[in-house]
This record gives sequence, structure tokens and C-alpha cells, in this order.
Amino acid sequence: MAEEYTKAKIMEMRKKHIGPSCKVFFANDPIKIVRARGQYMFDEKEARYLDCINNVAHVGHSHPEVTKAALKQMELLNTNSRFLHDNLVRYAECLTSTLPEKLSVCYFVNSGSEANDLALRLARQYTGHQDVITLDHAYHGHVTSLIDISPYKFHQLGKDAQKEYIHVAPPPDTYRGKYREDHPDPASAYAKEVDYIIKKAHQNKRQIAAFIAESMQSCGGQIIPPAGYFQKVSEFVHKAGGVFIADEVQVGFGRVGKHFWSFQLQGEDFVPDIVTMGKPIGNGHPMSCVVTTKEIAEAFGATGMEYFNTFGGNPVSCAIGLAVLDIIEKEDLRGNATTVGNYLTELLIEQKQKHPLIGDIRGVGLFVGVDLVKDRLLRTPATAEAQYIIYKLKEKRILLSADGPHRNVLKFKPPMCFNKEDAKLVVDEIDQCLTALEKAIGIQSNAGLHEKNPAKRKVHHENSGSTNTKDEETCSSNLQDSNPNDNACRQSNGLHPESPTVTRKRIRT
Amino acid sequence: MAEEYTKAKIMEMRKKHIGPSCKVFFANDPIKIVRARGQYMFDEKEARYLDCINNVAHVGHSHPEVTKAALKQMELLNTNSRFLHDNLVRYAECLTSTLPEKLSVCYFVNSGSEANDLALRLARQYTGHQDVITLDHAYHGHVTSLIDISPYKFHQLGKDAQKEYIHVAPPPDTYRGKYREDHPDPASAYAKEVDYIIKKAHQNKRQIAAFIAESMQSCGGQIIPPAGYFQKVSEFVHKAGGVFIADEVQVGFGRVGKHFWSFQLQGEDFVPDIVTMGKPIGNGHPMSCVVTTKEIAEAFGATGMEYFNTFGGNPVSCAIGLAVLDIIEKEDLRGNATTVGNYLTELLIEQKQKHPLIGDIRGVGLFVGVDLVKDRLLRTPATAEAQYIIYKLKEKRILLSADGPHRNVLKFKPPMCFNKEDAKLVVDEIDQCLTALEKAIGIQSNAGLHEKNPAKRKVHHENSGSTNTKDEETCSSNLQDSNPNDNACRQSNGLHPESPTVTRKRIRT
Repeated sequence: MAEEYTKAKIMEMRKKHIGPSCKVFFANDPIKIVRARGQYMFDEKEARYLDCINNVAHVGHSHPEVTKAALKQMELLNTNSRFLHDNLVRYAECLTSTLPEKLSVCYFVNSGSEANDLALRLARQYTGHQDVITLDHAYHGHVTSLIDISPYKFHQLGKDAQKEYIHVAPPPDTYRGKYREDHPDPASAYAKEVDYIIKKAHQNKRQIAAFIAESMQSCGGQIIPPAGYFQKVSEFVHKAGGVFIADEVQVGFGRVGKHFWSFQLQGEDFVPDIVTMGKPIGNGHPMSCVVTTKEIAEAFGATGMEYFNTFGGNPVSCAIGLAVLDIIEKEDLRGNATTVGNYLTELLIEQKQKHPLIGDIRGVGLFVGVDLVKDRLLRTPATAEAQYIIYKLKEKRILLSADGPHRNVLKFKPPMCFNKEDAKLVVDEIDQCLTALEKAIGIQSNAGLHEKNPAKRKVHHENSGSTNTKDEETCSSNLQDSNPNDNACRQSNGLHPESPTVTRKRIRT
Repeated sequence: MAEEYTKAKIMEMRKKHIGPSCKVFFANDPIKIVRARGQYMFDEKEARYLDCINNVAHVGHSHPEVTKAALKQMELLNTNSRFLHDNLVRYAECLTSTLPEKLSVCYFVNSGSEANDLALRLARQYTGHQDVITLDHAYHGHVTSLIDISPYKFHQLGKDAQKEYIHVAPPPDTYRGKYREDHPDPASAYAKEVDYIIKKAHQNKRQIAAFIAESMQSCGGQIIPPAGYFQKVSEFVHKAGGVFIADEVQVGFGRVGKHFWSFQLQGEDFVPDIVTMGKPIGNGHPMSCVVTTKEIAEAFGATGMEYFNTFGGNPVSCAIGLAVLDIIEKEDLRGNATTVGNYLTELLIEQKQKHPLIGDIRGVGLFVGVDLVKDRLLRTPATAEAQYIIYKLKEKRILLSADGPHRNVLKFKPPMCFNKEDAKLVVDEIDQCLTALEKAIGIQSNAGLHEKNPAKRKVHHENSGSTNTKDEETCSSNLQDSNPNDNACRQSNGLHPESPTVTRKRIRT
């Protein structure tokens, strides 16, 4: 199909025909992409962008094996799962083989939102309870029931938006949260917060159906829970008659390298009761899955109510899902995530020694966050600076995003074929941006800075699976203390036109 | 991919890996389909089935133009709508051009469920109200918020399952409902029921956000609302500050022939505030859409909360959607729906004159229902007989289903390329089934039967767009009065293994 509309024309047509709540990246000068391959996207002028953010294009944009699998099946048959078909059962078998044995029953759906909604339905039916514990800053999807459990969203709706059957626990963030890296046992401390919530709910005659958390918080700011946290939470939740839902929509399918699922970072002794999957599962094809135990599935089935999902588990979706699993294996994308992820993290740690604006580097495999701060001691989020960097990188044709409640965390989640050269390129550019930025706002890039209160930081080393502690550098920076924009978390990065202007203005003052 | 599993093996694997709530058609002897083309599906032994039920394969199974469009776009790019792309705006423009002008703003999502959930979010945000009026027996989707508005589903969950913010209105069924074809103005009478509900809600300090209805009830039993009903309901709902949501997930995209959308059967003076689309939109590709007015979209956008749907509106889905619109036009599938639908209806009306078991024929275009009754006067639903027929037809390799609250309505909703030969074939087989059935249960097939209380029946004649009245035949049948299985409506047709045995037993006694 010929590319026929200018960017201005597309924006005009979007204004007329697309809901204004549907934002574009870099709204003041959005990008028109016409083709993509691997980790590269190309605009209408054939300019190449390095893609550090599209975790949906998991095995690489427009992977020919995915296209081939889709074509082959589309030519034959695409119908619903009320007819028997090889693909459905073959795929269910392959997918569950990546999981601990007790997670054996699949429900195929069309999106992460459908998956998380169904997970809640399963949990509520199985437990007979209603209440859900969710983490602060969590985002679990866009349907009504999920806005309810997504503080990232419902906080925007005013003070009364939190439903009485939803309880918000502090995210297990050891950099910016309640219990930090200097706490002797943050896993237990954060888990006890959940236990406290349960006890309070019981006092109010409420009953817990589920605890839900992303295995690593993505929109919440690339938060990696301390190992052991999920086990302890699970124990408390089970004792209360609830179930544990691990949301792997953003972080599953080998992104963390060593493991296929991010919840496995917690240790082999942890198995959730329900796992939800999404984004990368079909490399962009709309599909999703919920996997649970036989017991939960049987309780859900015992009502006699059919669960029918028109498109879920159709032969084309399953063929694509199978192709994605196959490519992850054949191209050793988990190995690549480990190697390149470690390399990227090392490069970023070097940058941290040089740039006071970098407060924290955290990540596993190809899921890495760079937490920017105005002040390393106070850990004041450097929101405007993060926005400035992603806009500057865009000019350099590198796509990166900033997220978290303060929108100050640079967020890497590239296609899994991202390589060392890509990592070097983006880190070099970030280096240049930070140098310019620090110069502009009058602080010195320096490798010899020292934190006043040096704390042990954990960085996952995925080749060993163990965690090493590294001393943090400290600084007493003279960054101006502009107030972090509390409303900033209400808009995803690059999604409102004012950002670059505001940012530049602030930086120039 | 080689077809490798036997049906027994697939069933065994499904038992292990697929949730038991996910049923198969004809569970005692399910069908394995390996390929399909047009209105025909083929099993693993190359046996051909005539497909009278798969409304998702709208332009015909495995349509080569749909496959071609998907392939071409998949090879280039599949990404999210935060990047600019021609396909999104071109598709939005084409799709809205099929609708009245005020329905101009699209939200692209992945399923009918996502569409209806978003419609509720739009309605609630726009009106500031919470309550929803839905029709009895309605089914609007499988996510939590939609189970709430689907009596077809929530009635199965016990007496307390109806939420206080949900109000159930009687479906505008002029054959089996409160106001029938002999009522002077059933449209007004049914609309007044909605007004009554609104008034009662107001007395209880509740406020109406929306009235939602399928433009023709599908699971509810192929119910065609009397013309004028939607206008009158809309007036009452608007007066109460609510909006009108037309659910076209099952019945849109030209199925009714003369019109592109089923709500247009109500007359040109009716325009809903929100329209939801699904199933046929992508010929099986998981996609869906909500279309609404600028005012509602702006109110939804005014919260500042982004609406991001990962897969919704991706370039591949839009390319497929465009191909479907194109094929409907190029192959004159609406013309075909009118011609073949009228022919099918005429053949069925002939059968009605012959078979006392047929109580009512109703339909428009290729959306036709045959309401089977044990007694034409009492209109007692012939549930077991309907089940017997669909099982018998399956043996003849014809796929038909039975639905409605009593599961006694034979339901035609075939791919839109269904032709006159197909219609003749299925009606001839139904004729044979009914003859055998009537003989077995001791009533006479007869063309000279007369109803005791002959009432005027409306049958839409789509070539003229007008409605003609036809006298109904009457009979005082001597069918045994076996109790209709009230629980039957709780399971979709052919979806539980006991049906055929029970049916045959009942019929043989």
C-alpha cells in the first residue's frame, strides 16, 4: 500500500477520527514509521531509529518466521476453539512446558487486559472472596476491573477513586521506597506490609481474593523486588485464603535472560497460582494467555458457566505463538538478553561514575532502568532531565522512554535481538546528553564523586544468577532543586506536547 | 504444519491444558477442522461441512485478499498506534464513512469484550453516572464489567448476582415477550418499560449512564426489535442524562443486507451515541472498535488519562480491516445477504406451513432465526427438538446452532458468501429432520394447519426495506408437553455431551 499521507495530514485525520485519549509519542513532532526489522524502525524518509522500547516486537520487528507461520495458517484456517485443532493443544503444551509443573491449564485471550481481568475472575471464583491487593504505581490494564487495581491509573481520577475492595501495598522498591538497600531484610519488611493490609481487611470483615503484582514493575519504574518477597507475600495471601497472580505481560518470555519468566528470579521455591502473559507472546499479533493450576481451573469450571473467547486460541494466533517460542530458542535470545543486558548494565554503571544525574542503575537481562536524580542523597527525581534526554535521543534517532511515578526512569526494554553495538551506541549518546545537560545546569560530570551515605546496591548478574553488591558513588551536587512534577506520572513519556518546551525552559533558567 | 493429533489425543490434551470452561461443539463427538474456504469447512478426512454459523468468517473463511493484506503489512511493520501510520487513519476514515456523520471518533481495541467495556467507560465518564440498563437474555462479553450487564451470564450465578447498578429491561421480543405481534404498538410499549425502569432508578437516587442493546439480540434468540423502539428508548435515556450504546459485535458489517449496520433497521432518524463492533470486523483476526461522537470522546479525554491499547489499531489489524471493508463492497456481499437471506426466509416460511414444530421465522438478511415450538398456541419452546436437529444436521455435515433463553431457536448467521444452493440444502435437510421428528413424536407434518389465534407476523423484506404482514398458520398439536429445560439456556448449543442422548431418549418415549 502506497504511503500517502504526510505527518501533518495524519495528525489532522487522527484529530478527527481517533479518540483524543489515544496519544502519540513525541506529540510536538511525532514519528511516522513505515517499516521495521529486528531492533530498527524506519521512517517515511528511510531514516533508521534504534528501538530500545518496543518489548512487544520481542523476537525483532517483522520477523520473517513469524510472518511465515501466520501466512501458512491464514491460508488454511482461522476459526474458534470450539472446533478441535492441533495448534491449540500443541501450543498449550509448549507454553506450559516453560512453567513449573503445577501451572498447567491455559486460557487463551486477546490482550494483557483480558488476561488480567480473567485472572481476577478465576481468583474470585476459586476463593469466593472479592478483595484484591495491588502494589502502588501498578498498571495492569485498561478495562474497568483493571483500572480499579491500577493505582498508576486510578490515582488520576481523584481521591475517591480507590474502591473499598482494593488495597494498595507499597511497591518493593529498595531505591526509593519505604525500605531501602540499607535495610537488613527488605523482602520481609515489604511482605509484612502486605500482611498488615490483610489483617486490617479482616478487621473490616473483608476477604482477600488475590494479591497481584508484575514480577518486575514496569510502568512503576523498573522495580525489581528483592528475592524472597514473593514467597513471603504468597504465604500471607494463602493463609488468608487468597491466590497470588504474577503479571508477566511486560516482563515474561525470557526478557530476563537466565529464566523464561521473571517471577523465577525470586527462587525455585516460588510458584504463583496464576500467571498472565501478553505483549511479547505473539510479537505484535493480538493474543494473550492466562495459565493457572488444575484446582483453580476446576473451581472456575464448576459453576457450569462457559468461558468462550471468540478469537482466543485460534489456529493463526497459536501458530504465531509457537513460532515465537521457537525463535526464542533457536536464536538463543535468552542468552543474548543475558550477554547484552549485562554489557549494557556495565556501560551504564560506568556512566553512573561519571554523571551525578544518574542515581541508580537496575535491571536484569534486557529490562534495565536508569533512575535519574537531581540529588543523589535526597534521590530527588530528575523528571525534566529524563524528558530532555528522551527528546534529545529521539533527535539522534534512538527511541527510549521514561517512566515510573516521577517519569524519571529511563527504561530499556528493546526487542530481544538488541546487540552490543546498539547498547554502546545508546549509552554513548546518553553520555553526551548528560554531559551537555550537566554543563547547562552547572554541575560537573565527574568520575570521582562520592555519596554521603554510601549504601550497598544490588545488581543482578545474570550469567551467575547471583547478586553482587557494589558501592555507590556519592555526590553533593549543586543541581537546582526544582520541584518534581507530581502530575508527571499521569502522562506517559513523550505523550504530551508541552514536555520538551517546559523541559528546555526549566533547564535554561 | 502436519496434522498430527487424533481427535482423541486432542481431547486428552485439552483436558490437561485447556480450562474446562472452554467448551467444544458437539462434545460427545467433536469436529476437527483443518481447513476452510468460503462457507465450507473441511475435517481431517477432507469431509466438507456447510457452515451456517460462523459469522466471524464474515467475507468467507480464509479469504485470499485478507491473507494477502495481512502478509503485505506483516512483512513491513506491526507496531502500536503511538507511532503515526497511514493505515490507522485511512481505516478510521473508511469505517466511519459507513456510519451516520456524528459517529466520527474511533477507539481500536482487540475484542468485542474490550469494545463493550470501553463503551461503558466512555458512557460513565461522559454522563458522570454509573447505572446501566440492559435487556434480559443479553450477552455483551466475558470481562467482569460485562458479565455484570449480561443476564445471559449472570443469571447463572444465582439470585444475588445482579448488581444494584444494573437494571434489566424486557427484550423487545414480539413473538415470546410481554408485548406481541398483536399489540398495537409494541415499540412504544417496550420503550415505556425502559422509562419505568429509569423512573424507579431515580426514585432510588440512582442515575443512568447508559442503555445498551445489541441492535438485534443474537444469543437472546435472534430478536429483531420493532422499528421505532430504539428511538423511543433513546429519548427516555437522553432525558435521564444517559447515552445509547448499540452493540453491533454480532450483527454489524452488512449482515442485514440493506444496511451496513443493524441499528439502521430502526429508521434513519435513529443514531446511537456509541457503537461497538467486533467479530466480523477482521474476518477472524483479533480486532474490534468503538465509535462514538466527538462530544463523548472529548469528555473521556478531558480527564487527561491516556487510553493506550497495545495491539489496538496496529497497522496489520488496520490493513485487514480495510481488506474486509473492500471485499464487502467489491463482492457485493450486502446484496448477496439480501438475495440469499430473502430466499432462505421464503424457504423456511414454506417449511413452517408444513411443520407444526416451527413456531416463528424471523430475520433480516443473513441473520435468521427459526423458533421451534411444541405447541403453536402456547409457544412452548421445543428445546430438545432443536438440539436433536442440530445434532442430526451435523451428521449431514451442516453446522447450525440453537440459541435463545430456551435454546430452541435455530440460528443462521453464515459467512456472507452463503448462496442459494447452500440455503436450499440446509432447508431440505431441516425438512427431512422435522418430518422424521414429527413422525417419531406422533404429530403430522401438514400444510393445512391453522393457529387458533392467528396473529399478524412481521417479516422484513429487505429488497424493499418495508415489512409485510403474513398470516400465521395455526395448529393444535398433540406434541407431548415435556417441560422446557430452563437450565438449557445456561449452556450454548452442542456444548455439553449429554444433549443428544437426552434428546433422543425424550423423543423415543
